[in-house]
Amino acid sequence: MSQKSLISITDFSKEEYLKIMELSAKFEANPNQSLLKGKVIATLFFEPSTRTRLSFETAINRLGGKIIGFSDSNSSSVSKGESLHDTIRMVSNYADMIIMRHPLEGSARYAAEVSDVPVINAGDGANQHPSQTLLDMYSIMKTQNRLDDINLFMVGDLKYGRTVHSLLMAMSQFKNPIFNFVAPPELAMPDEYKLFLSQKGICYFEHLEFNDIINQADIIYMTRVQKERFIAPADLTKLANCCPCGPTIG
Amino acid sequence: MSQKSLISITDFSKEEYLKIMELSAKFEANPNQSLLKGKVIATLFFEPSTRTRLSFETAINRLGGKIIGFSDSNSSSVSKGESLHDTIRMVSNYADMIIMRHPLEGSARYAAEVSDVPVINAGDGANQHPSQTLLDMYSIMKTQNRLDDINLFMVGDLKYGRTVHSLLMAMSQFKNPIFNFVAPPELAMPDEYKLFLSQKGICYFEHLEFNDIINQADIIYMTRVQKERFIAPADLTKLANCCPCGPTIG
Amino acid sequence: MSQKSLISITDFSKEEYLKIMELSAKFEANPNQSLLKGKVIATLFFEPSTRTRLSFETAINRLGGKIIGFSDSNSSSVSKGESLHDTIRMVSNYADMIIMRHPLEGSARYAAEVSDVPVINAGDGANQHPSQTLLDMYSIMKTQNRLDDINLFMVGDLKYGRTVHSLLMAMSQFKNPIFNFVAPPELAMPDEYKLFLSQKGICYFEHLEFNDIINQADIIYMTRVQKERFIAPADLTKLANCCPCGPTIG
Repeated sequence: MSQKSLISITDFSKEEYLKIMELSAKFEANPNQSLLKGKVIATLFFEPSTRTRLSFETAINRLGGKIIGFSDSNSSSVSKGESLHDTIRMVSNYADMIIMRHPLEGSARYAAEVSDVPVINAGDGANQHPSQTLLDMYSIMKTQNRLDDINLFMVGDLKYGRTVHSLLMAMSQFKNPIFNFVAPPELAMPDEYKLFLSQKGICYFEHLEFNDIINQADIIYMTRVQKERFIAPADLTKLANCCPCGPTIG
Repeated sequence: MSQKSLISITDFSKEEYLKIMELSAKFEANPNQSLLKGKVIATLFFEPSTRTRLSFETAINRLGGKIIGFSDSNSSSVSKGESLHDTIRMVSNYADMIIMRHPLEGSARYAAEVSDVPVINAGDGANQHPSQTLLDMYSIMKTQNRLDDINLFMVGDLKYGRTVHSLLMAMSQFKNPIFNFVAPPELAMPDEYKLFLSQKGICYFEHLEFNDIINQADIIYMTRVQKERFIAPADLTKLANCCPCGPTIG
Repeated sequence: MSQKSLISITDFSKEEYLKIMELSAKFEANPNQSLLKGKVIATLFFEPSTRTRLSFETAINRLGGKIIGFSDSNSSSVSKGESLHDTIRMVSNYADMIIMRHPLEGSARYAAEVSDVPVINAGDGANQHPSQTLLDMYSIMKTQNRLDDINLFMVGDLKYGRTVHSLLMAMSQFKNPIFNFVAPPELAMPDEYKLFLSQKGICYFEHLEFNDIINQADIIYMTRVQKERFIAPADLTKLANCCPCGPTIG
């Protein structure tokens, strides 16, 4: 596998996914590698995400690398008006790799284009979060011993949840997946993803609530409602209000 | 000593205190140990405390460990509404030990209960700060060559100062301590601690001001007034106003 | 070179500059030194500066050192009212060296006076930023193969830009420098620096705009307008307004 950026889960082929799963199992069994010895990795979090940041920083530490970075844009020069272009150009001169979280969709792709070093997208707005998807796939592999023939239930916020979209794209590359979407209408899976599945001839079903069909699931993928992604907080209130008395067809 | 959490200074026995003092002297003489080699330690500071955080991070670095964490809750996912339970569960999967500072009393004990890895309480509200107490005991040992038979003057904010309470609990385990409390009435040692000493048959004396008896002190433990612990800032102003003309009985 | 603080670019002699340039070239060619092995370096940023902080932290990491510190004063105990004196005294007990950025002019010199360990000034208000100057000199050396006989154009904010002042002081130590200042009147080079050059018999020229003479430049040193250094934001607006129709004498 060449040294390249990971921006979207579609950047990798099925074969590369499987290679990453294999490496992950190896690192999980014996994490104290010196793989990153002498390497400096930048973790640039333009919005806070403890869970994601600490997971990357743990991985870097366990693989022997050193860390520079920031955990939110308030304590960085972004508050002085420095552009993303300048920040990335600067850091790509300091670090051997950049891991980046940014609130704007498309920012990670842009960063990879201006960086001299590989960029890993740790989430760009509502767009992509590919490392989360790799982890999700690894969890499926560990519990099911396969990535083919998976009946996958996706539940909750299927509209704004970027991990849902990324996992859908990734799993669609494997044999005979079945997708079941459980969400209220306001948070339904966007049409573009349903169209994508249709065009690949992949089965999907939509439900407004849980029902008996859940028993067929290999994996149930639950998401939280991401209030920080809603444009208007009123949307969330409306949703919270309507949920208990929501429709019952499924 | 087994791998266990340090939440309250009462978690350890007198023998364990002495063992820690002995280890501390060894590490002070030769700090470049590889004791924590390959270990990742999380420093989770839900409220800022540079002094405490940097002291722990220095110790981790000098003992060969790696660090992940955050220095205040604004740059962590706590601002997204993540619960303490979830944060601790997550981090205990990443790190080999958790060092935690939190504004809520009891939070450290709760964290230790839900964590898979040992938790060190680096201060939970006005409750406990046991590592500070270990350091205080180490300072007493270094200067007095003993922990028994200490005449200890505690001065200043004896009401809200958690280090004062922890040191009282710790020193009460050693032979023949004498406690002298010097504080204005608003910041007097709480009754529960005086009751605790009485029940153990340990002598204590209360004073409103310094006086000649200070010459008998082996140790004078001065505290600052912790304005961040006062419920109403007005209390502090009142105190500041009354101090210069305070009562003179002692 | 003895272990000493770097507060102002005038702290070092011409010979020491040249020694640092030589060491820098060596480290640039082979950065994975163990020069700082076992050392803990504190990076204390009382105001955010990602560029400067990450460059120092990269250097520390590449030279094998460990890092403690904070990236802005909001997440440090400065918000509890801890004095600079106390912070520096505390950290000089933890770390083997302190790298400090502070908004107040003179703060770095003060820190060096109360610290037990060397202090590197990473910028103190509008005053000094000596490591930036060392880097600027290194860039001149790399591109021109000399530090003597340099015709240096300084452009932009010559009033508040501390790097401009530091570079002027440094380059004035070498043989036959020529200084050309290009700035609007509101941001002109302060009289004290012009007086300094005059007293050393060094040539300088002032211009309000670029003109043909720019062809004689060996180095053009461009600065940005540092809006965070302006006392009144109105100044900046005024400047932005007047620039397009500024005077044309040069």
